[in-house]
Amino acid sequence: MTGALAQLWAGLDIGGSKVHAVAVDDAGEVLAEHRAVSRGGTAGVLGTAGAALAALARDARRPVGAFAAVGIGVPGLVDTATGSVSHAVNLGLDGTPLRLRDRLAELPGLAGVPVAVENDVNAAALGAARLLALDVPDLAYLGIGTGLAAGLLLGGRLRRGLLGSAGEVGHVPVDPAGPRCSCGQRGCLEVLVSGAAIARAWPGPPGTPAAEALFAAADAGDARARAVRAGVVAHVAAAVRLVVLTVDVELVVLGGGVAELGERLAQPVREHLERSAAVSPYLRGLDLPGRVVTVPAGPPVAALGAALAGRARAGQSPPALAVPGGRPWRS
Amino acid sequence: MTGALAQLWAGLDIGGSKVHAVAVDDAGEVLAEHRAVSRGGTAGVLGTAGAALAALARDARRPVGAFAAVGIGVPGLVDTATGSVSHAVNLGLDGTPLRLRDRLAELPGLAGVPVAVENDVNAAALGAARLLALDVPDLAYLGIGTGLAAGLLLGGRLRRGLLGSAGEVGHVPVDPAGPRCSCGQRGCLEVLVSGAAIARAWPGPPGTPAAEALFAAADAGDARARAVRAGVVAHVAAAVRLVVLTVDVELVVLGGGVAELGERLAQPVREHLERSAAVSPYLRGLDLPGRVVTVPAGPPVAALGAALAGRARAGQSPPALAVPGGRPWRS
Repeated sequence: MTGALAQLWAGLDIGGSKVHAVAVDDAGEVLAEHRAVSRGGTAGVLGTAGAALAALARDARRPVGAFAAVGIGVPGLVDTATGSVSHAVNLGLDGTPLRLRDRLAELPGLAGVPVAVENDVNAAALGAARLLALDVPDLAYLGIGTGLAAGLLLGGRLRRGLLGSAGEVGHVPVDPAGPRCSCGQRGCLEVLVSGAAIARAWPGPPGTPAAEALFAAADAGDARARAVRAGVVAHVAAAVRLVVLTVDVELVVLGGGVAELGERLAQPVREHLERSAAVSPYLRGLDLPGRVVTVPAGPPVAALGAALAGRARAGQSPPALAVPGGRPWRS
Repeated sequence: MTGALAQLWAGLDIGGSKVHAVAVDDAGEVLAEHRAVSRGGTAGVLGTAGAALAALARDARRPVGAFAAVGIGVPGLVDTATGSVSHAVNLGLDGTPLRLRDRLAELPGLAGVPVAVENDVNAAALGAARLLALDVPDLAYLGIGTGLAAGLLLGGRLRRGLLGSAGEVGHVPVDPAGPRCSCGQRGCLEVLVSGAAIARAWPGPPGTPAAEALFAAADAGDARARAVRAGVVAHVAAAVRLVVLTVDVELVVLGGGVAELGERLAQPVREHLERSAAVSPYLRGLDLPGRVVTVPAGPPVAALGAALAGRARAGQSPPALAVPGGRPWRS
C-alpha cells in the first residue's frame, strides 16, 4: 500500500473441485500460495474467488485491494475482452455466461483492481512457459484433467482463435468405432483419454486418483490394468502427434491431474512415439519424443499463469503475453 | 528497367505436374500469367522455373532480371531462411535438399534478384487472403490436391512451426481401421481424402480429373459413386473440423485440385457439418459450416501468394506477410 512495497499480482486457478491461488511479486517470486476446495454455480465461484483472494492477501499482509491485478483461470469458453465465461460445465455454469470480471469488482475492496479472465489451459501454458524459463515460448500445454484440451503459446503469443476454441484437441474424433463423447460425437480423444475416461475404465479405491491407481495396478502386474494403461499412453501420444502435426510447437508440456504421474506417464509416451517413428520415416523426421516434457516443479502452473495474465491486463507486460526467459518478469 | 516503370513481382507455383506463374505490379494487378507442364528432379525443377520466368518476362516486356523479387511455392518441407526444399516427393526430390534460392541465382539474369521459397499451401494461404481482400487474414487454406495439407495464416502471420510441419493435417490418423498411408501410419486423413485417394477409389476416364469423374457419376445416380462421394465429403468435413478445433481460424478455404469442384464440394461439406452440429451442441456453437469458403475466381492462388512472399522477402511488406485488405498491396 505504500510506495516502498513491491507490487503484488494474484493468480487463481478455479477448477471444478479445487482452487489454487498464488501471489507473486514483481520479480516473479511466489510470496503466498493457497489451495482450497471450490464451490460451483455463480455464487459458489464468486465466493471461492473472494475467499482465495482474501487468504492470499492475509498471507501477504496486504488488503485485497492492494493487488496490482488479479488473473483468474477457469475451464470453459472465455471471452477475454469482457472477462466472462460460458460453457463451464465443470463449474456448474452451464447456462448463461458469467461476467466474472464485472462480478468480481463488486466484491469488497476489489473495485478498480484490473481483472483478467483466461481459459485455464491457456493460463497453464503461460505458467509453464514461465517455469521452463523460455525466452520466446512456443509450446502446447496439454491439460489432461477431467477433460482434455491444449493451451497454445505460438511464438510467445496465446492462440485463442475466433471463438476461443483453439487447442480443443479433446473433441477431435480419432476412432469412428469409439465410444460416444459428452460433446455428441463419437471416438473423440477426450472420451478415450482424460481423467474421467480413466476413472470409467479403472475406478480405483476412494481417495486415490484413478490414474495413480491404474498405474500402480499396472506396475504390480495386473494384466487388465496394463492393457488400460497402454491405451492411455497411446492416446496421450496421439494427442502429442496431433498438436505437432497441426501447429508444430517446439514443446508439448504434459499437464493436468493425470500428468501428475510425471515421468511415469511421459516416458512411456515418448517410447510409444519412438515406436511409431520406427515404422514412419515421416514421423521420425518430426522428433516427437524429444518435444515431450513434464511440468517443472514449482507453484501451481495455471495459477501462476493466471497471475501473468493479470499482469498483462494491467499493462505490465506486452499484450502478447510474451514471457521473457532467464530473468523473467522484466518488461 | 527505367525509373518510370512500376516494379514487377514474379510468383511461381511449381507442382508435380504443372507450373503456374504470374507477374504482378505494385498495385497487385496481374500483368502476365503463364501455365506449363513441370518437370521433376533438380534440373527439371530449375528448368521449369527458368522457363516460366522467361515466359513471364517476355509477356511483361522486361528482362528476367528486372523482377523486383521472385517467389516460388513448392510442395515439401521448405526452409524459408535458406530457401531450400526437402522431402518434395512429388517434385522427384526425395533425396538431398535442393537449395532452390541459390541455384536460381545461377540462372541467366537472375543474380541479385531476391528469391523467396515457400511451401505451396502456405503460399496459397497468402494468395487466398489477397483474393478474399481480408484485412488481418485468419484462415486455413486446405489444399486437397495429390495430398492433403493446410496453410495457416493466424492473425495475419504464416504459422510454419519448428520444422515447417504446421498444418500437416493430412497425416493425422482418424481411423485405426483405415488403410495404410504412404507415411507409414494407418487411417491418416490424406489416405482417406485427397486427389490420390479419390483416384484409387474412382479412377475415371483418362484426361478427366478423378474428383470430377466421381462427382459426375454420383450426380448421374451411380450408387457406388454416391457412396464414395459421401466419404469424400465426410472426410473433407473432418479436416475442416480438425483445423477449427486446433487453431480456430475464421475461415477454412477449400483449395487444391479436388476443390476445383467449387460449390459442388463446398456445399455438401457445409451440409455434412450442419448434420454433425445437429447431434452436438458443442459443434453447433462453433459454426463450422459458416467458415467454409471456396477460392475466389482470379489468378492461380498459390502463384499469387508466392509473388507476395517474394515481395515480403524484398522488404516491401511486413515480414509477417500481413495482406492489407480493401486496397491491398499498399505497405
